[in-house]
Amino acid sequence: MTERSVNHATFVIRRSFAATPARVFHAFADAATKRRWFVEGEGWTIEAFTSLFEVGGREHSRFRFGNDPAISNDTIYLEIVPNERIVFSYTMTVDERPISVSLGTLEFVAEGEGTCLTYTEQAAFLNRLDEPREREIGFRELLQALAPLVERPPVDA
Amino acid sequence: MTERSVNHATFVIRRSFAATPARVFHAFADAATKRRWFVEGEGWTIEAFTSLFEVGGREHSRFRFGNDPAISNDTIYLEIVPNERIVFSYTMTVDERPISVSLGTLEFVAEGEGTCLTYTEQAAFLNRLDEPREREIGFRELLQALAPLVERPPVDA
Repeated sequence: MTERSVNHATFVIRRSFAATPARVFHAFADAATKRRWFVEGEGWTIEAFTSLFEVGGREHSRFRFGNDPAISNDTIYLEIVPNERIVFSYTMTVDERPISVSLGTLEFVAEGEGTCLTYTEQAAFLNRLDEPREREIGFRELLQALAPLVERPPVDA
Repeated sequence: MTERSVNHATFVIRRSFAATPARVFHAFADAATKRRWFVEGEGWTIEAFTSLFEVGGREHSRFRFGNDPAISNDTIYLEIVPNERIVFSYTMTVDERPISVSLGTLEFVAEGEGTCLTYTEQAAFLNRLDEPREREIGFRELLQALAPLVERPPVDA
């Protein structure tokens, strides 16, 4: 037996937002908004960010933290139901080496005046270069960065 | 709550072939060979089959049984390690309606003079139009059709 070089895993994240499904969906669909929460951040250099949000369309980003190796994300949008669902694949590389290929499903469901977002990632981690728990933490952090872009600031009493 | 319209599931199929990993891999990589076991069959009309086997390349097939609605398969190759691994996404439609989006991983491992093929499918079934058990049976049947194309016929004693 050779060493198994693919680790398949699934994780699910649910998070509520105080914003309508249309508004949360827009933060994924609109390239300028997505860039803000998905790749921008203190200490990060963005070397590329292009997005074509349509079925079959591709999104490419490339970024690095300080002098660390470049990380790239190549997303392909596979199914889109406006304000309800986005299904996509994405491949991550570090220093040009693929570390994972994933299928991501985003489901946006109205919850009172807000939204319950469910994200399901079905991933193939390659060559022992990343692992499910790290990926799940990373995506939770991204949603934490997204929240203030869609939620209204609290009104002063 | 709205009705949940995505059903996520994973299944794994293992099958041995009396042929080298290179030969089994070739049956997936070579468009003419793949067409034979993947879409051709008695009673089926093939309306389209095009394949570009490279990372980022696409394969499109469209076929129907008798006068049934057309079925289409749109595959995108996401990672390829020659003779060892293929990772791809594929979207299936029936009568133009998406029924599933999947991530497929094929792993080819030498087993004596033969090959152990492991196929892992991580799927998002949409709108209750298909289900994991049917898909798994379908892929087992495809591998059954593939086998005689790569295995040598038995030598008469």
